[in-house]
Amino acid sequence: MTQLESARKGVITDEMKAAALSEGVAPEYMRSGVASGAIVITKNNAHDSIEGLAVGAGLRTKVNANIGSSQDHLDVDEEMAKLMAALDAGADAVMDLSTGGDLKAIRAMMLRESSVPIGTVPIYQAALYAKRKRKSFVELAPDEIFDVIEEQAAEGVDFVTVHCGVTMRSIEKVEGRIMGIVSRGGALTAEWMRYHKRENPLFEEYPRLLKIAKKYDVVLSLGDGLRPGCIADATDRAQIEELVTLGALQKAAFDEGVQVMIEGPGHMPLDQIEANMILQKRLCNNAPFYVLGPLVTDIAPGYDHITSAIGGAIAASAGADFLCYVTPSEHLRLPTVEDVREGVIASRIAAHAGDIAKKRKGAIERDIRLSKARKALDWEAQISLSIDPVKARRLRESAPPTEDKSVCTMCGTLCAIKIDGK
Amino acid sequence: MTQLESARKGVITDEMKAAALSEGVAPEYMRSGVASGAIVITKNNAHDSIEGLAVGAGLRTKVNANIGSSQDHLDVDEEMAKLMAALDAGADAVMDLSTGGDLKAIRAMMLRESSVPIGTVPIYQAALYAKRKRKSFVELAPDEIFDVIEEQAAEGVDFVTVHCGVTMRSIEKVEGRIMGIVSRGGALTAEWMRYHKRENPLFEEYPRLLKIAKKYDVVLSLGDGLRPGCIADATDRAQIEELVTLGALQKAAFDEGVQVMIEGPGHMPLDQIEANMILQKRLCNNAPFYVLGPLVTDIAPGYDHITSAIGGAIAASAGADFLCYVTPSEHLRLPTVEDVREGVIASRIAAHAGDIAKKRKGAIERDIRLSKARKALDWEAQISLSIDPVKARRLRESAPPTEDKSVCTMCGTLCAIKIDGK
Repeated sequence: MTQLESARKGVITDEMKAAALSEGVAPEYMRSGVASGAIVITKNNAHDSIEGLAVGAGLRTKVNANIGSSQDHLDVDEEMAKLMAALDAGADAVMDLSTGGDLKAIRAMMLRESSVPIGTVPIYQAALYAKRKRKSFVELAPDEIFDVIEEQAAEGVDFVTVHCGVTMRSIEKVEGRIMGIVSRGGALTAEWMRYHKRENPLFEEYPRLLKIAKKYDVVLSLGDGLRPGCIADATDRAQIEELVTLGALQKAAFDEGVQVMIEGPGHMPLDQIEANMILQKRLCNNAPFYVLGPLVTDIAPGYDHITSAIGGAIAASAGADFLCYVTPSEHLRLPTVEDVREGVIASRIAAHAGDIAKKRKGAIERDIRLSKARKALDWEAQISLSIDPVKARRLRESAPPTEDKSVCTMCGTLCAIKIDGK
Repeated sequence: MTQLESARKGVITDEMKAAALSEGVAPEYMRSGVASGAIVITKNNAHDSIEGLAVGAGLRTKVNANIGSSQDHLDVDEEMAKLMAALDAGADAVMDLSTGGDLKAIRAMMLRESSVPIGTVPIYQAALYAKRKRKSFVELAPDEIFDVIEEQAAEGVDFVTVHCGVTMRSIEKVEGRIMGIVSRGGALTAEWMRYHKRENPLFEEYPRLLKIAKKYDVVLSLGDGLRPGCIADATDRAQIEELVTLGALQKAAFDEGVQVMIEGPGHMPLDQIEANMILQKRLCNNAPFYVLGPLVTDIAPGYDHITSAIGGAIAASAGADFLCYVTPSEHLRLPTVEDVREGVIASRIAAHAGDIAKKRKGAIERDIRLSKARKALDWEAQISLSIDPVKARRLRESAPPTEDKSVCTMCGTLCAIKIDGK
């Protein structure tokens, strides 16, 4: 039985109990959230080495780190180091988006070594299979795509991005965009459909996908293959047409006992973020919303961890449940190990700021503890309570105060806390 | 005559014309904005080496960089390097907050070398004078404080932070806060008042301050000496009591022909930012709002350029006119040259994201140009249009693609733009 089927029957599973404990909510709250589809618990029933991760209404906002090789950069050891960096920085989940090298081996490594759920985008592996068979992606048969999904589900992948909402009706609405289709899965799917003049197999044969997901309790992350690739394209008819479809697909999966999250953009002006969160919750039956960014401007390559932290914080405060990080390397190169670390921290800052704004129990308490340590000029406590104690300590120790060791070199003895405390 | 007096008489000054041109607004829009107090033009009438900077309603959101020595770290050459880094990164104004070494010499260097307005907090120099005379700050006479302000105004400082709203009525409301008073100027002023059991001289003898400001057309930046130092203290009675006073002081200055900005917090939960912007505009007669941050969480020392970019973007979108940057070193040490650069860029991202949300003319156009270059896989144009071309180029060139030079190593040949463009 899936977590959803159990919840619907009134059963509080071990995963629900554990998640409830870590969230500080009642087990019954967790069960009823899962039963309503507003919460998912991501844990493949064959992935024994992790605890499930609960994502959704009333819970702490979660953070995902995308890692994985590319065809231009494939180094298994480096991906292992990125996984460790993501976990060390506090990622709640990791997606293996590898598109180069031995994908199966990399995935096996991640499934084995990760302490958090692993997600994938199976269509990338299908694309690589096609390339190795020296054929074009469009020459793949639908069976070959479904086979890859089943293969990954059987291996223990906890959630998969599937671009089921890329339909004949939605792709025609991309016309007139500045950036067209910027999701790799969305672009591949649209290419296949245009070539065959045929509907998306993942949409047409959706019940087949549900069967796989149900068997392994894989959470379907319904991808936004038509997400806007620049802020001028945001909230357009293509994006919203797809979202309407995703809402219907969420309902169909839910009725079958399959857990679903919805993926969201992307690039979006700050003033459209709240409306997008309200729209997703309303159109998708309150299913958890998993957003990439959103990036609030396009002009900052090299700093997209910041543009997305701005958008992510607002999104989290307005209802997003799960933030996909963006690194400083976005739009420029495959991220490095250090980029992964920076991306996770920036995204955790956004998630936490959103949780404070949502008045989530326990969120502001950490800020209060740190602030009390700051008022007491207790540097050890400040550092240990900070989101990245290693960096906080490094900066502090790089510039030790001279005259009075209890202050910092910003103000020296002209420290407001000292003066006010006299 | 001050810019305000000229505007009130219907005169469009050269400074208004230049500012109107650079903002893409009509000269008459600029004049009427200055005449109403909703726009200030920061330019000391003795500071000939800069153009004036217009800040306020309907204009591009501006960014200030705080630099300056401290008693623990005083190196004139390094401060010069910070000034150049701030200008190079695109700061619209610079505040010299030096508190260590030869303040007069550092200030003279900045006034001479800067191409943008220079602001100061004169009370820091008063505090240093006291220390050199081996007396406590509380032993300073009001005359000594006013003398420092006049000295700096005569030297050509364009705007000064003065903590006139720290009054007997407001400081009593600080009781019960976690962080107390965290503004250095606010803490010094309160210490003086508590010691003497006497009202703040800058409040009591406000007309004397107006006389100095008027003589040199120095913009008064009415400081928020009681700004919250942690998010749990935000929007409390002390902060709002002070803001009410600042509104009255703005009106009094405006009536005298003196230009005024209002300073704002600080640390603030994301969901309180918009309310604070509305409140300031309403209480302070639509005077320009100059905010520090706001930082949306306290737990990220080492990343406060990010916590403040989140708050700054929301503030700008909701009406803030001028963002004071925060660097990664905030709360830990005096910023380095590299911190200055990172701080300015993060703040410019926030300002620009706010300008897009406010639908300011010309803001999104740059994003559209960059996105068109991105769609065309035109890397040179993408880099030259980005907010920090140096960093964008460095990241791109650190990982050159192998198979196809037109893509990047994130996706390699699995580039959505390539696939969608087929």
